[in-house]
Amino acid sequence: MTDYAAPIKEMRFALALAGLDEVRALPGFEEATPDLIDAILDEAGRFGAEALAPLNRTGDLEGCRLEDDTVIAPPGFAEAYAQFVEAGWQSLVFDPEHGGQGMPWLLQGAVGEIWQAANLSFGLAPLLTQGAIEALTAHGSEHLKATYLPNMIAGTWAGTMNLTEPQAGTDLAQVRLKAVRAGEETYRLSGQKIFITWGDHAMAENIIHLVLGRLPDAPAGVKGISLFLVPKFLLNPDGTPGPRNDVHCAGLEHKLGIHGSATCTMAFGEEEGAVGYLVGEENRGLEYMFTMMNNARLSVGMQGVAIGERAYQQALAYARERIQSKSVTAPREAGPGTIVHHPDVRRMLLSMRSRVEAARALGYYAHANIDLADHHPDPEVRARAEATVQVLTPVVKAWASEIGVSAADLGVQIHGGMGYVEETGAAQHLRDARICPIYEGTNGVQAADLVGRKLLRDQGAGFARVVGAMEADLATLGDAARPVAEALLGLKASADHLMKVGDMGQAMGAATPFLNQFGTVAGGWMMARALAAVEGNAQPGITDDPNFAAAKRATARFYLDQVLPLADAFATQVTADQSCLLALPEEALATT
Amino acid sequence: MTDYAAPIKEMRFALALAGLDEVRALPGFEEATPDLIDAILDEAGRFGAEALAPLNRTGDLEGCRLEDDTVIAPPGFAEAYAQFVEAGWQSLVFDPEHGGQGMPWLLQGAVGEIWQAANLSFGLAPLLTQGAIEALTAHGSEHLKATYLPNMIAGTWAGTMNLTEPQAGTDLAQVRLKAVRAGEETYRLSGQKIFITWGDHAMAENIIHLVLGRLPDAPAGVKGISLFLVPKFLLNPDGTPGPRNDVHCAGLEHKLGIHGSATCTMAFGEEEGAVGYLVGEENRGLEYMFTMMNNARLSVGMQGVAIGERAYQQALAYARERIQSKSVTAPREAGPGTIVHHPDVRRMLLSMRSRVEAARALGYYAHANIDLADHHPDPEVRARAEATVQVLTPVVKAWASEIGVSAADLGVQIHGGMGYVEETGAAQHLRDARICPIYEGTNGVQAADLVGRKLLRDQGAGFARVVGAMEADLATLGDAARPVAEALLGLKASADHLMKVGDMGQAMGAATPFLNQFGTVAGGWMMARALAAVEGNAQPGITDDPNFAAAKRATARFYLDQVLPLADAFATQVTADQSCLLALPEEALATT
Repeated sequence: MTDYAAPIKEMRFALALAGLDEVRALPGFEEATPDLIDAILDEAGRFGAEALAPLNRTGDLEGCRLEDDTVIAPPGFAEAYAQFVEAGWQSLVFDPEHGGQGMPWLLQGAVGEIWQAANLSFGLAPLLTQGAIEALTAHGSEHLKATYLPNMIAGTWAGTMNLTEPQAGTDLAQVRLKAVRAGEETYRLSGQKIFITWGDHAMAENIIHLVLGRLPDAPAGVKGISLFLVPKFLLNPDGTPGPRNDVHCAGLEHKLGIHGSATCTMAFGEEEGAVGYLVGEENRGLEYMFTMMNNARLSVGMQGVAIGERAYQQALAYARERIQSKSVTAPREAGPGTIVHHPDVRRMLLSMRSRVEAARALGYYAHANIDLADHHPDPEVRARAEATVQVLTPVVKAWASEIGVSAADLGVQIHGGMGYVEETGAAQHLRDARICPIYEGTNGVQAADLVGRKLLRDQGAGFARVVGAMEADLATLGDAARPVAEALLGLKASADHLMKVGDMGQAMGAATPFLNQFGTVAGGWMMARALAAVEGNAQPGITDDPNFAAAKRATARFYLDQVLPLADAFATQVTADQSCLLALPEEALATT
Repeated sequence: MTDYAAPIKEMRFALALAGLDEVRALPGFEEATPDLIDAILDEAGRFGAEALAPLNRTGDLEGCRLEDDTVIAPPGFAEAYAQFVEAGWQSLVFDPEHGGQGMPWLLQGAVGEIWQAANLSFGLAPLLTQGAIEALTAHGSEHLKATYLPNMIAGTWAGTMNLTEPQAGTDLAQVRLKAVRAGEETYRLSGQKIFITWGDHAMAENIIHLVLGRLPDAPAGVKGISLFLVPKFLLNPDGTPGPRNDVHCAGLEHKLGIHGSATCTMAFGEEEGAVGYLVGEENRGLEYMFTMMNNARLSVGMQGVAIGERAYQQALAYARERIQSKSVTAPREAGPGTIVHHPDVRRMLLSMRSRVEAARALGYYAHANIDLADHHPDPEVRARAEATVQVLTPVVKAWASEIGVSAADLGVQIHGGMGYVEETGAAQHLRDARICPIYEGTNGVQAADLVGRKLLRDQGAGFARVVGAMEADLATLGDAARPVAEALLGLKASADHLMKVGDMGQAMGAATPFLNQFGTVAGGWMMARALAAVEGNAQPGITDDPNFAAAKRATARFYLDQVLPLADAFATQVTADQSCLLALPEEALATT
């Protein structure tokens, strides 16, 4: 019941749609041949289905536990992790100079989707390592990089992000963890972090914590936060893990979902102080942290896609085997049939699948733009791609993570009563998916980021670049794209409204509907592109499959006819007077 | 953190809006004076807050367990149940002839909301008893009624509904549980039922199961199902509970939520056959079952309201104490403030509260129509009220239960990471609420009922009566109601479309958006009425409170400006060509 297989055809289609050919042609990606990419996808699909997916349910049931001060992962996780490392999956996109394979981020978008779909709890471990590698690559000294990156890129050492403290969640200005200088490049850290994903485990030989802390003489607020590298095991002179550092998991959270992953309270410096090494310069930690956070946000959006896909596969399998009532579309003389023939069940399935496909396509497109921004020889193209990544990151994170929750919710509903009992696994997807709108910045934070930093700060310049590319492309897609082009005008009108409204309360009160409108319209763009590709037979190797083409026509039609119209309702919400939100005295909010 | 207090002011307002004065004036309700009703509400609020709410979290943590063949309820439940019975709460609306208090169903709508908000798991026990009392009252012989009703109405004996079998969920035509005649009025039953809520416990002295079964010579399908009364303990000649009947709980489900309630697999007749008594006539069981089901469906809608209210109270309490970042609406020099001042948090709170209020008002209105249908001297009024109950029941069940889930979901989101850990209790509300769209007929079944039985079957006659009353009322409400009047035209157009579309696949494919449109518009009507009542100061005792009036203006404004516009999007979904749902070959639905 909880099988998962990677939707390889759809992934190849979405990769092509996102511009894989253009990405492959970039300098540095000479080795990323179509054959190699196909082989990587196939092998990732196999590994996800065979090694990771079977551990998803047992991970949920068994959970992690803290034994002495080491987190014990669920049964099978350590073995799967060793295989993951052995196969080189952690290194896919990273710098060949430190042992990486230098493949495009676009490919990682697809491969990462497989890990998260197969086993979200497991997939968080390499995802956090990925973020730590990025931050260290971008901001670490050559010495730190040479010392830590090769093993992290190999995956033999894992990485974490230690940001949150009880009083400092969204508001990292409140970080208090104390760091004092203790020698050249060396500091001693003490304090507590909470909600640290895979903050401890024994699957890797070492864990490299990236930790936000504050020096005693640092300025208050966000300008006084520094980033430190704190290894679980200090290194021996030969670079191998040596003595235990003074950082320990002090407790595990009891969560709604992702039971297979450890969410740790981390205690730093309960004895002599945890040894840490400064990353970059003092007091610039927050800026560095955003390096890993931004990419992680895209990945969380892809988790929404991933879990939506998995929930869809499971709901479809159930709908195809569960016999209950005769469909109204069946012949009069027919007996009860499988519920997949009931129109309302079809509606739920298409609602899941069409939005998952739209979100996947947009997520891959954002990943392709990372590659363009990093590698394209033309600075103008790089700048446009960078703007695209900046603008789309909060949209993909929030909109796609909501789609993941909504798809998992519909997956439960399709199962009826069997969805509410835990044994089918449908409920687990809902519990697991529910974290995605929360972590790496809540979806409300994403909406505020989109409106505040990505729209208002540059007076719509970046937004205009992204929307301009959409408009130009839509103009090439023919009649089917016309409703999307109209919806895009609505999105521009909403953006204009936000830029003119003047009052920040009004603007921020409209942030979430603006993000919803953006995602809905951008998803419509992707589905119009998909429809055009299928109709134009632009991907012959795929659309020669009549079932694939028929499904894509159906999901595109459903999206354009029945999902895209929500954009108008969101626009009405954006332009509404938000005084009803803001003007109410706090006391009047109480109902009792 | 998981406190609950009944929102008494809002309840009184919604009761007035639903027509409490008109209901009180009906023959038979002479004793339901305003003072008595206020006293009942206050006392229910006290009992809910003090006796039931504190058991909500412990019930979730401890759950039920099966010991020998008796279900042991969570700690404190049996004591609370005894107090509930002692206070006479079970008897509130029932026939004084059998010991009931004969109060209006409208009042029960409010009182029941309190039980479900305080403790959904606990509240299911009296709710199921209520359904069993109704079915027995309507269809049982005088002898059965005299024998069983007094103790059921008192609550000393509980009731259950035994419908579902593994192959017979939505499709009750597939019921197989075997009943054979064993004497005058006596039958022996054997077989299995699943998903039986509170199918066993020791809180009551006896449990009266109402069970669907099939006689050996019965016709196939729904016309061969009979309804039986099967007591857990057979009665002694003096009417007291005697020997154990051959019906037992064989297992408990492990569910996503409502852990404090027992969901039982029931084994009938593992030895000599469970003794059952026929209710009404043979082979008419399904019809009788709908007597209890219809009212239970309204109650499930009210569960959505209830849990939405509770989630709101908890999220608001958290938002008022959690300090994180400075709001954009705060003065420049301000420091971090409570998150209740952040516009996006306000949006989530208002989104929860405005929809909960709209659903409560609509749910109470449906309950008032039960009283009008039962008691009004004018047969024309009775007929219109009956049509209103018929049409609104699936709308309230599905639309309000979705609001419950959505509100609980937003409640988690407002808590951020603290919402994803179980200790705050926010996640429990989401897990608990998630059952409501599933049981008592999934929301898809409700949508099919609305379109198939309540719209198409009588060619829109009942629908027209309900909508006619809405139109007439809207015409009296002034300018503020104009957007609702327009949205109502859209609803009528959608209904016309469904009546003309001809193809049942197209009609049923559009059923869920039609229900969503109906609920959204009807909720808008309620909020327009509420706004008019506040502006017209029609409820002076309540709206003299400036905070109440300000809040009502804000929630009505938010609903009319930002929720009601979704009705247009639903209309677009209703009238879309549903071929994309229906035409796809089953094989093409697979993504792998």
